[in-house]
Amino acid sequence: MAKKLTSRKQDYSQWYNEIIQRADLAENSGVRGCMVIKPYGYAIWEKMQAELDRMFKETGHENAYFPLFIPKSYLSKEAAHVDGFAKECAVVTHYRLKNSEDGREVVVDPQAKLDEELIVRPTSETIIWDTYRKWIQSYRDLPILVNQWANVVRWEMRTRLFLRTAEFLWQEGHTAHSTKKEAITETEQMINIYADFAQNFMAMPVVIGLKSKKERFAGAEETYCIEALMQDGKALQAGTSHFLGQNFAKAFDVKFTSKEGKQEYVWATSWGVSTRLMGALVMAHSDDHGLVLPPKLAPHQVVIIPIYKSDEQLNQVSEVALKVKKMLESRGVSVKFDNRDTHKPGWKFAEYELKGIPLRLALGARDIENKTIEVFRRDTLEKKTYNIVDIDNKVEKLLHDIQDNLYKKALAFRTKMTFYANSKDEFVKLIKKGGFVYAHWDGTSKTEELIKQETKATIRCIPLDVKKESGVCLFSGKPSAMRVLFAKNY
Amino acid sequence: MAKKLTSRKQDYSQWYNEIIQRADLAENSGVRGCMVIKPYGYAIWEKMQAELDRMFKETGHENAYFPLFIPKSYLSKEAAHVDGFAKECAVVTHYRLKNSEDGREVVVDPQAKLDEELIVRPTSETIIWDTYRKWIQSYRDLPILVNQWANVVRWEMRTRLFLRTAEFLWQEGHTAHSTKKEAITETEQMINIYADFAQNFMAMPVVIGLKSKKERFAGAEETYCIEALMQDGKALQAGTSHFLGQNFAKAFDVKFTSKEGKQEYVWATSWGVSTRLMGALVMAHSDDHGLVLPPKLAPHQVVIIPIYKSDEQLNQVSEVALKVKKMLESRGVSVKFDNRDTHKPGWKFAEYELKGIPLRLALGARDIENKTIEVFRRDTLEKKTYNIVDIDNKVEKLLHDIQDNLYKKALAFRTKMTFYANSKDEFVKLIKKGGFVYAHWDGTSKTEELIKQETKATIRCIPLDVKKESGVCLFSGKPSAMRVLFAKNY
Repeated sequence: MAKKLTSRKQDYSQWYNEIIQRADLAENSGVRGCMVIKPYGYAIWEKMQAELDRMFKETGHENAYFPLFIPKSYLSKEAAHVDGFAKECAVVTHYRLKNSEDGREVVVDPQAKLDEELIVRPTSETIIWDTYRKWIQSYRDLPILVNQWANVVRWEMRTRLFLRTAEFLWQEGHTAHSTKKEAITETEQMINIYADFAQNFMAMPVVIGLKSKKERFAGAEETYCIEALMQDGKALQAGTSHFLGQNFAKAFDVKFTSKEGKQEYVWATSWGVSTRLMGALVMAHSDDHGLVLPPKLAPHQVVIIPIYKSDEQLNQVSEVALKVKKMLESRGVSVKFDNRDTHKPGWKFAEYELKGIPLRLALGARDIENKTIEVFRRDTLEKKTYNIVDIDNKVEKLLHDIQDNLYKKALAFRTKMTFYANSKDEFVKLIKKGGFVYAHWDGTSKTEELIKQETKATIRCIPLDVKKESGVCLFSGKPSAMRVLFAKNY
Repeated sequence: MAKKLTSRKQDYSQWYNEIIQRADLAENSGVRGCMVIKPYGYAIWEKMQAELDRMFKETGHENAYFPLFIPKSYLSKEAAHVDGFAKECAVVTHYRLKNSEDGREVVVDPQAKLDEELIVRPTSETIIWDTYRKWIQSYRDLPILVNQWANVVRWEMRTRLFLRTAEFLWQEGHTAHSTKKEAITETEQMINIYADFAQNFMAMPVVIGLKSKKERFAGAEETYCIEALMQDGKALQAGTSHFLGQNFAKAFDVKFTSKEGKQEYVWATSWGVSTRLMGALVMAHSDDHGLVLPPKLAPHQVVIIPIYKSDEQLNQVSEVALKVKKMLESRGVSVKFDNRDTHKPGWKFAEYELKGIPLRLALGARDIENKTIEVFRRDTLEKKTYNIVDIDNKVEKLLHDIQDNLYKKALAFRTKMTFYANSKDEFVKLIKKGGFVYAHWDGTSKTEELIKQETKATIRCIPLDVKKESGVCLFSGKPSAMRVLFAKNY
């Protein structure tokens, strides 16, 4: 039996790394900061993709694909966009290799230098708006509701699997509209879709809010975000949706003729979630036994393990197990029957516990006699024996309960870890302890920066549902119209 | 009404470009050689992906994701692999930009030079086998059946949309096996899956065969391929599956302990198809009116267009149209109802003809009275009026017929354009005319090269089903055991 995981209490960060590794989710590659997403991890990402893609299409979006490379000059066009980020990028300077003179290795051919360097996309606003100029002439061409599933690269110095990697996978929506109002409605629609996905599929409660000016996306007029609380009391930004105003339309000269025959600049949004959600998913629910997956995103919702001493017993058990599998599959439940004889049941139990499969069904000779089956719930670690006759109903109900329970548990944790600070001292203490801290702030970037320096806390968002309540900024003493959400963050 | 397409006879290449552009499939981007795949083109690619992905999974493969970048030194490890290609690659040399001194643009930060250059993957054998070394210890870890959907970059000098682009999308399968036999079986299974997909989904007949040594994938011991014939008489390689022997295992030191306790090198395969299939699909079936899509890959199989003179008529027609839509959708048919009042029916007819939608249904006030509907078949350009009552049966049958007819038509064309050359003169004439030419060849790369120089024809493959038949090479006069398939190619 493999050794136990490091516990969350012992070393939260080590616990996270061990789960990622031992549940076969991902690993570091030979390329600094770039990960390999292993088949089991990728299968979870595929489930996420499928649900999100469905939600995007149901709201009228189409997928497309834009180039990996962005000419360097494009990045200079939208000033705020460049200032804000896009500096830590992979730069392509050459387009050919050749054999070295001794013939023992390949070297870069110095003759093959590009006239203009190409940047591996850190995000695609610039190349997409350069394209939209060709697509948009009239109000009849609007709206454009396009999404792209792609890889992007940001040369992060300190990387962590899924949470911060040099290359990551994501989707980026880029929409174009004829009115400001329609663009804002789209921005809000998409952050609500992300919140829906986080809560109803990932079973992860989120706070929806607006970023402060300082934390806004470079080039955006307003950034909406969803913020989740991890088990170590740190916040994780799980998705963003940006209202870009006419900034990119102006930078790339994208105008349309309105119904009234006037030339106007196009309004824009962009929005994205990434493989970072995988990190959030791991940290939201997992425990010291390993990964815990919500049934709606588990590649296998149920695993059936045969217990047997002889080939004859295996045959008997298999026959019933396959019937159960079929029953469950006809209900839309995904089932793995693990009848490998290279591994003992005990090993398999530990393996699927580590991998977070929501329900484990064990079936032995005695169960066959009694017409029963043993069911283990990964979320509560409870074991119970049920009659096999209506096991499909039971399993369906249990999966529903698990999905529900995970959300409630995460919500209860967040509630317990949400605080209201009314003095600077209290704020500092609460932030040190971890969790979400609601506090008054004077609305200036200067104070925000000061708070970050003193406490490492950042403004996660100005929650959309926050109530107006006048107070004074805990750090500057200046007036404040509402509390905002602070936390240390990933 | 937009102007007519250039005809195939007038200028085949121009015809192809116009279809790609006017059917909204793809366009060139601001980055040399990199394309933008537009939503309609991407929707077709998604249909292809979905079917292929299903076929891969049904044969036990799982998806994973490996890094975009490959350290330069990895490419030096498998000698034949490097020699054969991987020279025209995008090379990342720096990882940071900065503002220029005058603050007006971004420049590459010379301080941020990588110690080792990174190559944007042209294919992923090297990085994947570097990873497999960590995954494989024992025969119990085998086989590994992994596929990746990814973008790759090959710095092609002369590019054509879909057919040859610097960046393209593809899938690459990379499998690891404990025996040579199992690896060869896998290689053959995958080329058969590609042939199945080409024939039964793309409605495109293909010849399955082996590449000559000269045309083999760099690093492979055997390359299987499928070759299709385009309407201009040129061949297009539509997919390849490689038996890699132990070459990559040796280069990256990937060994396993066999059941007998011995250390052995792992056997490998790789196989891939790309967005090049989109080019093949366009050229296989389209005509001088525009794109023609096989129903199984059409994003919309049916479009319904209302014909009306007043709002009242539109309401009446819409009511029936939506009923028909529902009827068809319950049969699994994908239907678009285009009731936009910004465009006239005639414009819509032309638009969907250009976009290759298999069936166009037109519904007017008179049809409502008569309980009929007008149906236009894109493949035959036939128009017929049917009773609306069992239109779902009719449509289902018609879609089936179209799929079938497209395949038969393409097959008949190929049969007509397949020749047997028995002298050098005849060979030269036939190759000039275009089509598949079966001819004897002495089996040497030298003669193969000579033939290419003299006639521009290449050996497309040694067909698997070719019959043994002794003869003499048309160019060298040396003995030959069978005919091989020659053609000019894309």
